[in-house]
Amino acid sequence: MTKPTGLVWHELLMWHDTHALAGFMQSGRGVIEPDEPSESAAGKRRIKNLLDVAGLTEQLLLIKPRPAREEELGRVHHVDYIARLKAMSDADGGDAALGDPVGVTPFGPGGYEIAALAAGGVLEAVDAIMEGRVANAYALLRPPGHHAEAARGFGFCIFNHGALAARHAQLVHGLQRVAILDWDVHHGNGAERIFWTDPSVLTISIHQDNCYPPQSGLIDAIGGGPGAGYNVNVPLPPGCGSGAYLAAMDRVILPALRAFSPEMIIIASGLDAGAYDPQARMMLGGSAFAAMTKRVMNVAADCCDGRLLLNHEGGYHRPSVPFLGLAIIEALSGLKGSVEDPFEPIIAGMTGQDLQPHQDAAIRRVEAQLSDV
Amino acid sequence: MTKPTGLVWHELLMWHDTHALAGFMQSGRGVIEPDEPSESAAGKRRIKNLLDVAGLTEQLLLIKPRPAREEELGRVHHVDYIARLKAMSDADGGDAALGDPVGVTPFGPGGYEIAALAAGGVLEAVDAIMEGRVANAYALLRPPGHHAEAARGFGFCIFNHGALAARHAQLVHGLQRVAILDWDVHHGNGAERIFWTDPSVLTISIHQDNCYPPQSGLIDAIGGGPGAGYNVNVPLPPGCGSGAYLAAMDRVILPALRAFSPEMIIIASGLDAGAYDPQARMMLGGSAFAAMTKRVMNVAADCCDGRLLLNHEGGYHRPSVPFLGLAIIEALSGLKGSVEDPFEPIIAGMTGQDLQPHQDAAIRRVEAQLSDV
Amino acid sequence: MTKPTGLVWHELLMWHDTHALAGFMQSGRGVIEPDEPSESAAGKRRIKNLLDVAGLTEQLLLIKPRPAREEELGRVHHVDYIARLKAMSDADGGDAALGDPVGVTPFGPGGYEIAALAAGGVLEAVDAIMEGRVANAYALLRPPGHHAEAARGFGFCIFNHGALAARHAQLVHGLQRVAILDWDVHHGNGAERIFWTDPSVLTISIHQDNCYPPQSGLIDAIGGGPGAGYNVNVPLPPGCGSGAYLAAMDRVILPALRAFSPEMIIIASGLDAGAYDPQARMMLGGSAFAAMTKRVMNVAADCCDGRLLLNHEGGYHRPSVPFLGLAIIEALSGLKGSVEDPFEPIIAGMTGQDLQPHQDAAIRRVEAQLSDV
Amino acid sequence: MTKPTGLVWHELLMWHDTHALAGFMQSGRGVIEPDEPSESAAGKRRIKNLLDVAGLTEQLLLIKPRPAREEELGRVHHVDYIARLKAMSDADGGDAALGDPVGVTPFGPGGYEIAALAAGGVLEAVDAIMEGRVANAYALLRPPGHHAEAARGFGFCIFNHGALAARHAQLVHGLQRVAILDWDVHHGNGAERIFWTDPSVLTISIHQDNCYPPQSGLIDAIGGGPGAGYNVNVPLPPGCGSGAYLAAMDRVILPALRAFSPEMIIIASGLDAGAYDPQARMMLGGSAFAAMTKRVMNVAADCCDGRLLLNHEGGYHRPSVPFLGLAIIEALSGLKGSVEDPFEPIIAGMTGQDLQPHQDAAIRRVEAQLSDV
Ligand SMILES: [Zn+2]
Ligand SMILES: [Zn+2]
Ligand SMILES: [Zn+2]
Ligand SMILES: [Zn+2]
Repeated sequence: MTKPTGLVWHELLMWHDTHALAGFMQSGRGVIEPDEPSESAAGKRRIKNLLDVAGLTEQLLLIKPRPAREEELGRVHHVDYIARLKAMSDADGGDAALGDPVGVTPFGPGGYEIAALAAGGVLEAVDAIMEGRVANAYALLRPPGHHAEAARGFGFCIFNHGALAARHAQLVHGLQRVAILDWDVHHGNGAERIFWTDPSVLTISIHQDNCYPPQSGLIDAIGGGPGAGYNVNVPLPPGCGSGAYLAAMDRVILPALRAFSPEMIIIASGLDAGAYDPQARMMLGGSAFAAMTKRVMNVAADCCDGRLLLNHEGGYHRPSVPFLGLAIIEALSGLKGSVEDPFEPIIAGMTGQDLQPHQDAAIRRVEAQLSDV
Repeated sequence: MTKPTGLVWHELLMWHDTHALAGFMQSGRGVIEPDEPSESAAGKRRIKNLLDVAGLTEQLLLIKPRPAREEELGRVHHVDYIARLKAMSDADGGDAALGDPVGVTPFGPGGYEIAALAAGGVLEAVDAIMEGRVANAYALLRPPGHHAEAARGFGFCIFNHGALAARHAQLVHGLQRVAILDWDVHHGNGAERIFWTDPSVLTISIHQDNCYPPQSGLIDAIGGGPGAGYNVNVPLPPGCGSGAYLAAMDRVILPALRAFSPEMIIIASGLDAGAYDPQARMMLGGSAFAAMTKRVMNVAADCCDGRLLLNHEGGYHRPSVPFLGLAIIEALSGLKGSVEDPFEPIIAGMTGQDLQPHQDAAIRRVEAQLSDV
Repeated sequence: MTKPTGLVWHELLMWHDTHALAGFMQSGRGVIEPDEPSESAAGKRRIKNLLDVAGLTEQLLLIKPRPAREEELGRVHHVDYIARLKAMSDADGGDAALGDPVGVTPFGPGGYEIAALAAGGVLEAVDAIMEGRVANAYALLRPPGHHAEAARGFGFCIFNHGALAARHAQLVHGLQRVAILDWDVHHGNGAERIFWTDPSVLTISIHQDNCYPPQSGLIDAIGGGPGAGYNVNVPLPPGCGSGAYLAAMDRVILPALRAFSPEMIIIASGLDAGAYDPQARMMLGGSAFAAMTKRVMNVAADCCDGRLLLNHEGGYHRPSVPFLGLAIIEALSGLKGSVEDPFEPIIAGMTGQDLQPHQDAAIRRVEAQLSDV
Repeated sequence: MTKPTGLVWHELLMWHDTHALAGFMQSGRGVIEPDEPSESAAGKRRIKNLLDVAGLTEQLLLIKPRPAREEELGRVHHVDYIARLKAMSDADGGDAALGDPVGVTPFGPGGYEIAALAAGGVLEAVDAIMEGRVANAYALLRPPGHHAEAARGFGFCIFNHGALAARHAQLVHGLQRVAILDWDVHHGNGAERIFWTDPSVLTISIHQDNCYPPQSGLIDAIGGGPGAGYNVNVPLPPGCGSGAYLAAMDRVILPALRAFSPEMIIIASGLDAGAYDPQARMMLGGSAFAAMTKRVMNVAADCCDGRLLLNHEGGYHRPSVPFLGLAIIEALSGLKGSVEDPFEPIIAGMTGQDLQPHQDAAIRRVEAQLSDV
């Protein structure tokens, strides 16, 4: 491969402040003792650190974020949501979920500037891909984006990076069809709703069934109006390993992508389907993420000259997450770092990695749904 | 209930030093960046803190640990293992797993004294139960114990608390039959091996199939020699909720306990089958742990005047683990704390809580195995 | 000594949430990367933990806090300040300093209930002392109190515990004269201002000259109106050790206390004059704090039947602070714990522990000021 | 300025593992509860992070470390010390101070490789300066080096970076005279002893009098044999601010440097004379460090074409240390970052920043000592 893989990274994004959380819950009121937030800088910083130590960073092309402008954010998000965020950020920070405790998304003073910088990093990555400066790109950023909806943040997400990237590719670079594949273990509710009636953006989410948000990501949510058939949910039962994920890729997701023939593919790349993630019950290791990455790269190579952008989303087990990220970026770039993943052989040995009959049945239900459309 | 529930607690146990771990792996050598250990004081301290804030601690009878003597430890552990531990502890600490990276069990200077104090806490709890000072007891201590074998520590465990408690009950209090039920999500390999040929101690472990230790806890490991039939493994597939656990209790574990008619029941009470635990893939919440506790209490009431000791084992999701511990201790004591569990409704709503056909099949395999014996 | 020393402690106070701070500054806005707050639970918890391990806690009489009522808080604080705190606490928390960045005092949701519980703990301690249940008492609580003024919090402090204790002793127990000695290394601005014109409460502060709050605690601030002469500031230059502190005690503070002949003595017991404290430049060790404690106990024995209450204030070096607290409580109780202070010999060997000429001159300036009055 | 300032940085150095420390003491044995080490990655990482956010990093020339070879380390350190380090590193790590509790210097498995990489970073910086690729350089690395002696580590330091740099400049680049100025607040005992009899390396240390190591850094330690007069200690009393430091620079240190006329100047750049450092009692802010940097730059410009290398040493107050480092690097590079130091005005306002008479006397004693030589 002659073109490098791009890496979006900016130190200021690591200063996004989520400390009002203990795990994923707001602490306080004599119920939850304060503790560390699950969505923290450390989880992302450790990925970057491992890329550095493994010798990969210096072989990637660093894409430097710039702040997304309000009108760029306004392509996806409501003006009054943006204004409320700015007001909170100019004061002492606040909650981008606007008080919904299920989606609590705290940020600190100056948090708007950080969130806008993350969003701008994604836009820069789209530019770098479209202009051919990089073969593909991984945007290693926070806050995450895939739960954010048009008029509110949710689930640690403030702006919807996948949606903003898709609109940027369409509006600035003139693309017609963009596909968003969300392999974060939680449902990609944001893109589903934002593009519900829009057939120009295919949205696919593979996730643990009814894990988060509650009652979201069901199989029969296929989009509406002209967008009907352009939203695909692949809910899997808890406990799936690489067998189930790769079967779902091969039987459902890749065919859907090919049928749509996107001009760019965007992946909401949560790593929380990893085998040690506290916030879901799946069992993937680095090799599974690498295999999924390569499969999508193949589609991208066939459909759209390899144009592929991965936006980092969830992933909460600090010791192992860096190796999942490393595996993906090695696959994307064709490079091989100097560090071996010590978790991979343990995860590979876990009972349940192969496709199980009840997992096969879950995938068959999606296949049936799709053949109806 | 007129007698109180006992609580074993000692601040010094919280000073056990496991910081050589990042998660469950030894950090270093340019592979794993140092980070927090999964087995840490915070995970246990937070349970105690919630008991305090909920107003429960002051209604329990505090059982104060004393150091277990070498001859008491020698009832279960080899003399040379004890000697090696002491030598490492008198120097700068070391690894109780004696170099096995799969079982790495670091401790600091003075770690022997801490481990002996934890073991002594369990012995004091047995005394308190046998002497009728408490109705039952929860030993909230660390390091954990259930992976420790006769001649080595393993999986964060130094001395096997369940085994030591059983031997103490037999040798000091004259009991004939003691049952150890291990509901930590990882296999109770320690007690299985220690009592492999011993029919006087029934050992039962319900755990995620082949999760940890690797290839341990298989269904056909039933004990040997005179102990054949006195070890029961209940391996469950990843992704089980309360439906599977309670079915396994009702169909396998409780009948086995009743058939054995123990004079005391000991539970290796890991909380890592909790729905957010990073080190396994199960989905239990506080109500499931409470229900399991009550079921075993009923057996204990019928078999052995309610004599029941729970030794704390694993459980690694700091925000939610306190509520699992609270639920168990509320069940044990018949008390109700002043704090509601905010995780319980979320966990209850997760898809997969009901018994699934493939989980039912796994339990049926155990039933078949047992009927063979 | 026949009566025990009381210890005020409540787990919920450790849940006070100050995480918006990195050290003593609010993090955010792209200037200060988020980090740990200097005023945190760990700093106080570690004192309690060492008391536990040293075997002292069980020999003290535990005084359990109850929430201070609004009318009790209103004896010192303005009604509208209390109301604003409650409103912020019922929402997502806020800043008790009401936006003054120099005094930033963040708290989380439910923070009012925690602050009121801390204040109530102090009132309970006064009751225990006045009713003769304890010989004296140490209130190991947070948030601290000595910077709080009538109408606003400041410097991590929400309610002024010393002032509330003094008023409680006067209004409920009928005392006429109460003395407050503040040996926190920062100026006791709260009590100074609250009792500025009140001759019934002698307020003395020994502190690093012009350290915090800025330009506060100057030598010529002696009180006003009928309170003139009833406020004593003892500003010391940076770098003082036990020599300077004990000279100031013997030459200024103890004579002033004896001259006033209080019916109760309250100490704002910050430990941040310790030799490793990041937030000041003094050099005290445990033996100096013990010596200061014994000197005040002697005055209290002579003046007021030993009635002495210490309220915990600052102290930010987590490894060494527990030993300073231990030394004080050993002195108060006449007990000796089982742990030796490893910092004491290091601190004792530091150059500059003896009274230096320029320190002597600073004390002479206070003596001159006092002789004028 | 046409040539850039070099910055030595490598992520792996941040993986150096000192977690056996709580503060600066080894935890354990029931005396010191485990806690965070004072010498940690965070303290250095935060400097780098601020350089990134302030926009400086990208204007510096990154100097990438390579492992120092054993023969390079052997120019300063004993062969058997190096061998012992390697043996410990290949096992589970150990203590580079070889058991001296005053100097305890823990490291983890693979710690030798990290320490050798830090040392090699310094050598690369010398090469970059000597070859004219950079105007000067800041080596932002850990472990620190200035307490390390020929045959043992000490005080968190494993290899003596200043000494290694001086020898490299002499042996590889042919320099005759190298000066090492140590402004870490603790005594630069390592270089003093290593070059005690060597007149080719002038060693100067300005430090808090008798702070650390105990009884080290006294005024009459001037070197021995042919090295007599080539070691200068400037012990200052606790509590000094910029006035004392700049007076000592102007009256003692800069004249001594000019008299020696070095061909390269190396600074052991500890930042623990900062106003909030827990491990000393000085009061410097960013502007003082900038002023000291500029003064030494002027000497370097006059003596040796500006050849100046700063090796990072101590500095333990995580929130403020980044701004001290930023101020130094801005001075070195002539650049101005985008972030203002919020601590500077607070520190500038502290009483005691001006030269005090007793501080003047301490400097006069050094002047007298020097005029004797
Ligand atoms: Zn997710
Ligand atoms: Zn477990
Ligand atoms: Zn203070
Ligand atoms: Zn230092």
